[in-house]
Amino acid sequence: MKKINVGILIFDEVEVLDFAGPFEVFSRTRLLKGAESRRSDDSAPFNPFTVSMDTEHLTATGGLKIIADYTFNNFPKIDILIVPGGYGTRTLLNNESLLKWIKSVSDKANITASVCTGSLLLAKAGLLEGKRATTHWGAIKALKSISKNICVISDRRVVNDEIITSAGVSSGIDMAFMIVENLYGEEVSSDTAKYIEFHRSKQTL
Amino acid sequence: MKKINVGILIFDEVEVLDFAGPFEVFSRTRLLKGAESRRSDDSAPFNPFTVSMDTEHLTATGGLKIIADYTFNNFPKIDILIVPGGYGTRTLLNNESLLKWIKSVSDKANITASVCTGSLLLAKAGLLEGKRATTHWGAIKALKSISKNICVISDRRVVNDEIITSAGVSSGIDMAFMIVENLYGEEVSSDTAKYIEFHRSKQTL
Repeated sequence: MKKINVGILIFDEVEVLDFAGPFEVFSRTRLLKGAESRRSDDSAPFNPFTVSMDTEHLTATGGLKIIADYTFNNFPKIDILIVPGGYGTRTLLNNESLLKWIKSVSDKANITASVCTGSLLLAKAGLLEGKRATTHWGAIKALKSISKNICVISDRRVVNDEIITSAGVSSGIDMAFMIVENLYGEEVSSDTAKYIEFHRSKQTL
Repeated sequence: MKKINVGILIFDEVEVLDFAGPFEVFSRTRLLKGAESRRSDDSAPFNPFTVSMDTEHLTATGGLKIIADYTFNNFPKIDILIVPGGYGTRTLLNNESLLKWIKSVSDKANITASVCTGSLLLAKAGLLEGKRATTHWGAIKALKSISKNICVISDRRVVNDEIITSAGVSSGIDMAFMIVENLYGEEVSSDTAKYIEFHRSKQTL
């Protein structure tokens, strides 16, 4: 089975659960039910990996040390692009090469989705113009300030308007499950949620 | 403020959300409410870090590459010991030096807690004798088979009986919040859950 490549952007001061939540969901999804199918990759539909700008060694919020699988110089085709948030997004909002990379990868990807303040990066890359979108409750004003042409939603965990955005931190797990459900149906997503014992929220738009 | 050291054991094939969930909770807890207090460590009561056996470079389930802050040769005092689960626990169940380390660190720590199949390691280390405990639903039989003297609970996300054990994967986030609440009260734990937009489950014992 050809797997769907899920590229998760990471950077210094990325919020841990922002990238680790979706990574967990995509890496543990199986098309066959139960615990046994998780012991191999045979029925795994996704191939999740991390991508950073220019250096492999990164430090997430709280000090967790991670190594990116790829950099912008050597990443494979990305079918689903995940842009997490965190304090590190602040400096990245003015990083033109990063914003161009996001735009360019998103244009070729089937799905683009953000977690938390990752939506600020999507907004700065011009991807949310004319769309409904959300972000962490503490960044609603910041998202509005980037463009008047974004319809900012503040009462949903996940907003799907071609580009998918999610609210703060753990709502990225609900976002990942929405993608799994849209691609493989309710049974596969529910079975994966049962496997990782996550209580999904259906506060989506 | 003297911070509480939270040592999170990691190993090859550790389940990502098992360690990343509690890491997120402990690293983002603040004694002052709101988003602003999260921009510095000033009111952060916890100092979470990762510890591995003998090598810093590890690969979690799904291929996420992480670097441990410490190994068994150089770790600082651990006040709260967190033992996550994952497929990697299988080989560790017969690793005497790891089991001895868990027992020895747990004896000196104020709190010992596990996520998912991490409870199998606590059981093998003799820490669950005569206690109520839980684990991932797929490992209930395995936990029972380690010792007849463990009262295995299968309908709670978190079980606190001196040693704290939690059910599968994301229930480790509820476990971490239980510890935060026991130490700093409902307001601090709820504020942190609000910050990371996590809907807590109170299915605890």
